[in-house]
Amino acid sequence: MERTYRLTVSCPDRTGIVAKVSNFLTTYNGWITEASYHADPQTGWFFMRNEIKASSLPFDLADFKTVFAPIADEFSMSWSISDSGVKPRVVLMASRESHCLADILHRWHSGELNAEIVAVIANHEDLRRMVEWHEIPYHCVNIDPRDKAPGFAEVEQLIDGLGVELIVLARYMQILPAALCERYNGRIINIHHSFLPSFAGAKPYHQAYDRGVKLIGATCHYVTQDLDEGPIIDQDVIRISHSDTIEDMVRLGKDAEKTVLARGLRLHLEDRVIIHENKTVVFA
Amino acid sequence: MERTYRLTVSCPDRTGIVAKVSNFLTTYNGWITEASYHADPQTGWFFMRNEIKASSLPFDLADFKTVFAPIADEFSMSWSISDSGVKPRVVLMASRESHCLADILHRWHSGELNAEIVAVIANHEDLRRMVEWHEIPYHCVNIDPRDKAPGFAEVEQLIDGLGVELIVLARYMQILPAALCERYNGRIINIHHSFLPSFAGAKPYHQAYDRGVKLIGATCHYVTQDLDEGPIIDQDVIRISHSDTIEDMVRLGKDAEKTVLARGLRLHLEDRVIIHENKTVVFA
Amino acid sequence: MERTYRLTVSCPDRTGIVAKVSNFLTTYNGWITEASYHADPQTGWFFMRNEIKASSLPFDLADFKTVFAPIADEFSMSWSISDSGVKPRVVLMASRESHCLADILHRWHSGELNAEIVAVIANHEDLRRMVEWHEIPYHCVNIDPRDKAPGFAEVEQLIDGLGVELIVLARYMQILPAALCERYNGRIINIHHSFLPSFAGAKPYHQAYDRGVKLIGATCHYVTQDLDEGPIIDQDVIRISHSDTIEDMVRLGKDAEKTVLARGLRLHLEDRVIIHENKTVVFA
Amino acid sequence: MERTYRLTVSCPDRTGIVAKVSNFLTTYNGWITEASYHADPQTGWFFMRNEIKASSLPFDLADFKTVFAPIADEFSMSWSISDSGVKPRVVLMASRESHCLADILHRWHSGELNAEIVAVIANHEDLRRMVEWHEIPYHCVNIDPRDKAPGFAEVEQLIDGLGVELIVLARYMQILPAALCERYNGRIINIHHSFLPSFAGAKPYHQAYDRGVKLIGATCHYVTQDLDEGPIIDQDVIRISHSDTIEDMVRLGKDAEKTVLARGLRLHLEDRVIIHENKTVVFA
Repeated sequence: MERTYRLTVSCPDRTGIVAKVSNFLTTYNGWITEASYHADPQTGWFFMRNEIKASSLPFDLADFKTVFAPIADEFSMSWSISDSGVKPRVVLMASRESHCLADILHRWHSGELNAEIVAVIANHEDLRRMVEWHEIPYHCVNIDPRDKAPGFAEVEQLIDGLGVELIVLARYMQILPAALCERYNGRIINIHHSFLPSFAGAKPYHQAYDRGVKLIGATCHYVTQDLDEGPIIDQDVIRISHSDTIEDMVRLGKDAEKTVLARGLRLHLEDRVIIHENKTVVFA
Repeated sequence: MERTYRLTVSCPDRTGIVAKVSNFLTTYNGWITEASYHADPQTGWFFMRNEIKASSLPFDLADFKTVFAPIADEFSMSWSISDSGVKPRVVLMASRESHCLADILHRWHSGELNAEIVAVIANHEDLRRMVEWHEIPYHCVNIDPRDKAPGFAEVEQLIDGLGVELIVLARYMQILPAALCERYNGRIINIHHSFLPSFAGAKPYHQAYDRGVKLIGATCHYVTQDLDEGPIIDQDVIRISHSDTIEDMVRLGKDAEKTVLARGLRLHLEDRVIIHENKTVVFA
Repeated sequence: MERTYRLTVSCPDRTGIVAKVSNFLTTYNGWITEASYHADPQTGWFFMRNEIKASSLPFDLADFKTVFAPIADEFSMSWSISDSGVKPRVVLMASRESHCLADILHRWHSGELNAEIVAVIANHEDLRRMVEWHEIPYHCVNIDPRDKAPGFAEVEQLIDGLGVELIVLARYMQILPAALCERYNGRIINIHHSFLPSFAGAKPYHQAYDRGVKLIGATCHYVTQDLDEGPIIDQDVIRISHSDTIEDMVRLGKDAEKTVLARGLRLHLEDRVIIHENKTVVFA
Repeated sequence: MERTYRLTVSCPDRTGIVAKVSNFLTTYNGWITEASYHADPQTGWFFMRNEIKASSLPFDLADFKTVFAPIADEFSMSWSISDSGVKPRVVLMASRESHCLADILHRWHSGELNAEIVAVIANHEDLRRMVEWHEIPYHCVNIDPRDKAPGFAEVEQLIDGLGVELIVLARYMQILPAALCERYNGRIINIHHSFLPSFAGAKPYHQAYDRGVKLIGATCHYVTQDLDEGPIIDQDVIRISHSDTIEDMVRLGKDAEKTVLARGLRLHLEDRVIIHENKTVVFA
C-alpha cells in the first residue's frame, strides 16, 4: 500500500473550500487518491477528507501543517492530518469474553489492521495466554466492585504511560470513569451488543428476548460520559426467530459484534470518521 | 394452489402431543403438506401448525372441529382451524400516505394475497380514487382531533357491519380506542416506521436522524392498548448514511415499511403467526 | 428540492483535475451541494460528479457548456451537465407482469421520481387499464415470434417519435434488436431476475431452483447487444430455503426485482451512474 | 446443553410417516425438543429431523437403531441417528490463508462447536504455530504440482488413520482426488469464495471485479467430484462498490467466507442438513 497523508476537515460551509484546498494540493503537485465531501444542510457544516500520495508532496507532515495552517484559519477549520506510514498506538480492553478480542488480534496478526497494538488491559486473567501468544503485553487490573477508583487509577496510569492514540473496548463490560472518557474524547471506541438506542444498558439480549424482536444487532460507537449515548460509527443486525433462546442470541450476536467492531475500528484507523456534535460523518 | 386446512395449536408442553395429533390425522388419511413445531423451554409451552390437504380428509371444517375437540380438550389446547379456500375478510385503514396501501392493493389485485379486501377506511379523501379503481368501497371518516370519539364510533360501526376478520393499519396515523383494540385483539396489524423498540411514538425518522443511527427500520406488529408495544410479527432495516436527510430517510423507509407490512400480512393470512403473551411464534 | 446542475466527468487521471474544476466553480461562486470523486488505479481513469445550486451560478445550462468546454478539452473529458429542473423523458416497456411497472408508476405518481413518463409500450394488452389510470399513453405493439422485425420497427418508430432520453425495460421479456441497443447505448435499463452473472438467459428462477441456491437475486443493468452482459448498476438478493417452490421464488423475487429496478432507475435519473467500459461508477 | 438424539430421515412421501415416527417416540415416552418436516412436491420426497432428549428414552443409541429399523424399512427410509453427547471427529484442511481456520479454531476453543478437531492437514507450514497453540496436531503434506498423487495418498492415509467423520476445507485451495471425494461423499465441506454458481473455479474475486458486480459472496457446499458443483448448504453476500479494488474484495470477502463456513459447519454438526440428489434440505 502506498504511503498517504489523510487530511480531514470540518468547518462552517461556504463556497470556495474545495477550490482552496484542491488548489493548495495542486500547487504542490499533490496526487489525490481519494476525496470525499459532505455538506450538511441542517447544520450548515462542511466535512472533507482527502487522501494524498505522500511521495507526491515536496514536504513532510510537519511542513504540511505549517503550510496548510493559514488556509485552515481562513475557513475556521477543525482539521487533522495523518500519515498512513505511522501506525497509531492502540490499547485494547477486554474482560472474559474472547470473541471480539480474538477477532481484532487475528486481523492485526494477519496484517489487516494498520495499527500498533501496544497492550491489552483486562480485568480478568482469562485471555492472557491468547494475548501473549501474539507477543502483546497483557495487564490484568482488577476492578473491585465495591471501590472501583483504585483499579481505574491504575488503568489510567497504564494508558497514559503507553502514549495511546486509541482505546478499544472489546467487550470490556466496565463503565469507564467520566474523567477518562473526557480526556480521551473521540478516542475510545466501544461495541455495544444491541441495535442502539434499543436495549441500552445491561443484558441487552435478555431485553431483546423479552420484547420478542425479530432482529438483534450491534453498535460500534464512541464512548462519552453518557453510557451508550455516544456518536455511532456503525451498526448491523442479524435475523433471529422465536426458536432462538437467549443463549442462541448471545452466540449469534457475537458474530455481529465482532464484525461491527472491526468495521468501526478500521474506519477510525483510516481517519474516515469525523465526529460532529453527537453524530458521525463516515466517509466509507 | 390446492385447498388446505390449517390447524394451529398452542398448549402446555408434554410428551405425546405430536403423536396424538398426527395419529388423528393419519386415522383419517389426512395428507400433511407442511408441519411446524416449537417447544419453548422458557415458558414450557408448545406450538404447532399443520397444513393438510382438504381433499384428503373425509369431513369438512365443521366436522373437523367436532372430531378434533376432544383431543384439544385433553391437552388444554388453544387452537384454530381455517380453510385456505375461504378468504378472510380484511379492512384496510389509511390516512394520506399511499405507499403501503398501494402496495397491498397491488398484491391483492395481482392475486398474491389470499384475502377479501372488503373496504378501505381513511380519515382523508386523498386515496379514494386509487382505492375505487380497484373496485373496493372507500369510506372517509373524519377523526376530529378535538373530539375523536364520534369518528371512532363511526369507524367501529363500519368495521362491525362488515364482519371483518382482520384490520390492517396501512400507515393510519391515528391511535385506535382501547376498546376497539381489545375487541379485535390479535386481529389488528400495524406497521410502525422504526425498528421497535427504538423510536416508538411520533416522528420516528426525526428521532433516528437526531440520534445518528446507521440503519433505519420498520416493524409489523399486532396492535394492543399499549401503543407500539404489541407482539412483533416481522422487522427489517435498511442502511443509511450521514448524507441522508430526514426526507431521504422518509423516502427510503417507505420501501422497508411496505415490504415488512406485506410480509407480516401474508404470514397472518396463512395462519403462520401464533401469539403467546406479548410475543409471536412465526412458522415462516 | 432546490434546482441544481449536475456535472459528471470521466477522463484520464492526472493531478489538478479537481483543482481546475473547483476553481472554475468558485470563480463563478458556484455552490457545490454534493461532490464525488473516484480515481481507478487499475485503468488510470478519473470520475467526478458535482451537484451545484443552479441559482448560485450566473449562467444557464447552455452558457455553462460554453464556458466549461475549454477545461473539458484540456483534460480530454467525457462529460455531461444536466438540469434537475428539466425532467428526462422516459418510456417504460412491459409485457404481462405488473409488479415492476406498478411500482415505478406509483413512485412516479407520488412524486418520488424526477422524470416525465411519456408512454408505456407493451406487447400485450394486460396492463393498459393500470397505465391509463395514470393518464399515460399505452401503446400495445405485438411482437410476432415468427417475424419480430415489423413489431420492433414500430417500437423504434414510437420511441424515436417520443424524443426519449431513457428506456426502462420493466420485465419486457423481449430481446431488443441490436441496432436499437446500439442507438440508445447507455440509455436502456433492464431488470434481470437473477443475481448476474448467475442464471443469465431464460427462466432464471427455474435455474436457481435446480441448482439449489440459498439466495436469489435481481440485477439492474444497462442493455447492450450482449444479452444480460451489460454494465451492472445495482443488485440485491433475498434468502430462500428448501421449502420454497419455484412459484414461491417467483413471488419472492418480485420484491427484489422492483426494489432493485427502482434504485437503479433513481440512480440513473440523478446522474449518479457513469459507464466506463463494461462497468459502472455509482456515486450513491 | 441437555444430551439429545437426532433422528434424520428421508423417504418417499406418503401419509402416516409422521404419525408412525411420533407414535414410536411417544410409545417410549420420548421427549421431542425440536421437530422439522419437509415434503417436496416436486420430487415426492419427505424429509424429517427429530431431536429427542436422550434421558427420556429407555434405551441407548444402539438399541434405538434396533427398535427403529423395522419402521425405517416399512417406509424405505434413508436415516441416521446421532448422539449429541458424542463429538464427531473432524479434520480441517488449510493452505496459507488463516482467516477461516482461525475462525473455526476460535469457535472450537471457546466451546461453540460440538466437535473434536483431531488434526489440521495443510500443504504449507504457515499455520503450524497457530494450530499447535490450540494443542491440535498439524500435518504438513506437500502437494507437488507436477505429481499430486503421492501427496494426496499421504493425505488420504492420514485421514483414514484418524477415523474422521467430517473433512472441512478451510480454504485448502487444492482439488481433492475424485476417489477421496467419492469415499467421503456428503462428509467433505468446502467454502468457495463466490456466490455460486457465479465465478466457479479459480480467482473468483478477479472474475467478480472484471464483471463489475455490486455484491460479492461466499458459498459453503459439500464437495463432489464436480468442482464447485456440489450441494449448497449456505451462502451469503456483502455489498461492494466501484471504489473497491480486488485487494479490498479479497479482504471484505474473508468476513463472508468465515461466517458462511462457520454456519454451514454448525448446521452439519447438528445434523440439520439432509442431502437429496444435488440439493440440501436445511432444518435451520
